[in-house]
Amino acid sequence: MQIVKTVSGMQRLARAWGQAGIRLGFVPTMGSLHAGHLSLVKRARREVGPQGKVVVSIYVNPTQFAPTEDFARYPRDLKADARLCRAAGVDAIFAPTDEQMYPRDEQGAFSTYVVEETLSRAMEGASRPTHFRGVTTVVAKLFNIVQPDVAVFGAKDFQQATIVKRMVRDLNFPMRLVVAETFREPDGLAMSSRNQYLLGSLRTQAVVLSRALQRAREVVRKARAPLPVGSLKAELKTLIEREPDARVDYIEFFEPGTLTPVAKVARGTHLALAVFVGKTRLIDNSSL
Amino acid sequence: MQIVKTVSGMQRLARAWGQAGIRLGFVPTMGSLHAGHLSLVKRARREVGPQGKVVVSIYVNPTQFAPTEDFARYPRDLKADARLCRAAGVDAIFAPTDEQMYPRDEQGAFSTYVVEETLSRAMEGASRPTHFRGVTTVVAKLFNIVQPDVAVFGAKDFQQATIVKRMVRDLNFPMRLVVAETFREPDGLAMSSRNQYLLGSLRTQAVVLSRALQRAREVVRKARAPLPVGSLKAELKTLIEREPDARVDYIEFFEPGTLTPVAKVARGTHLALAVFVGKTRLIDNSSL
Repeated sequence: MQIVKTVSGMQRLARAWGQAGIRLGFVPTMGSLHAGHLSLVKRARREVGPQGKVVVSIYVNPTQFAPTEDFARYPRDLKADARLCRAAGVDAIFAPTDEQMYPRDEQGAFSTYVVEETLSRAMEGASRPTHFRGVTTVVAKLFNIVQPDVAVFGAKDFQQATIVKRMVRDLNFPMRLVVAETFREPDGLAMSSRNQYLLGSLRTQAVVLSRALQRAREVVRKARAPLPVGSLKAELKTLIEREPDARVDYIEFFEPGTLTPVAKVARGTHLALAVFVGKTRLIDNSSL
Repeated sequence: MQIVKTVSGMQRLARAWGQAGIRLGFVPTMGSLHAGHLSLVKRARREVGPQGKVVVSIYVNPTQFAPTEDFARYPRDLKADARLCRAAGVDAIFAPTDEQMYPRDEQGAFSTYVVEETLSRAMEGASRPTHFRGVTTVVAKLFNIVQPDVAVFGAKDFQQATIVKRMVRDLNFPMRLVVAETFREPDGLAMSSRNQYLLGSLRTQAVVLSRALQRAREVVRKARAPLPVGSLKAELKTLIEREPDARVDYIEFFEPGTLTPVAKVARGTHLALAVFVGKTRLIDNSSL
């Protein structure tokens, strides 16, 4: 397994593989890898086959964090990540520095952004106004650097995956995007690098996100007619905030393809949650 | 020579050429081709060699026109353009429809833009506020569709070429950008599809743009010390508006790499002009 640290090195490698007709699968990450990421690697391998190559990028992208967020303390451990990748059969890690990704040369500082203007407004975009602009920009860069045939994103960040899919369509990236199912702990908590922040009883309280999703699924499946959003939202908020350190940031019901909010909840409606558990903000989502 | 009308068709062709190790040169245009475009085609051929392929895109991109501008009456003649391309040894024309470039499917309308936020503000960006966002977006799309090794832009649209160069750097497009010299009529008028609008004496008056550039070069070359911008600007404005139908939109002096305005004009300073001649807005520029 190679660890590539420069943009030009990664582009050379991608070009050589492309010209040799080798299929390339790509899993972009911010590192601090866990079983959820490894399930994405497995999916990428399945997509490109044993003769293909799988690249994992590890880069904590500053432009998708607001100044008040956890960029500085976001967990980083390239050695441990490399061990996991090697064991998972990854062919190359792309782990650039900030200077590689956002260079400042004699022609001036970085100034080009990719912005998605419809799907980015609600939910995570409302809570974190500059977040998705940072995501789409760095993902466009990574796509141009790694030049994959297929990229795999996790469904845990459902809005992100939907926005990146839109970007791939709108800007005609010559690749396919796969959204892989959320990988969960045995008790239902969605895998996330931020779960490391959950100390003591916070870890147990955090299970309330997946419990709320499950409760919503039950209610919708038992209902004889579409349910008004308001009462279901209130019920879930009460359920969640029964946990002493849990505070709802948002609860949204929407069409999965367009992220358009719905007035009535029915089977196939999508539910997404963001909840602070202590100081840690967690997200989860599910089809109902 | 092939004429490709679909995004998927062009991507298939580009992929086949890429996997065969064939170098690909690209000249994006809005059609209505003239000798200026053909000089860009020649340059693309020189870059990729006789074994390489040259693609010209012909697409009048709606998103770079403001509602008040000449999108509807912009000249279009694919047959004549195809004849010129064939004679110039072009291998493929990519001529998509608006439905191909800005599709609206069940997932919703186009919503992803590429924006350059520093170089785009002045000059053309100030006079045409949404113009460059349309340009960078469509050029990013075309780069992903055609996947060239080298793209050739004309220096006549100097700010555009500088912004696209910045986009290529910032978003890591795996290609090289070449800016080719402005091609001029024998009397000095820069080649432009909009020159067709110049009827009667307007055609003669339009030469005043290149005369103004020449005058500025002479003044700067004779000067013993850097010149204050104000007086030179006033002199050029007077020179230009001596033509009965010419009205200055802007006259700007700046550093060519960063487009930063200068206070004093010296050798190497760049000068750009936009002038209405009758109802037709013309631009030109030169190093001094």
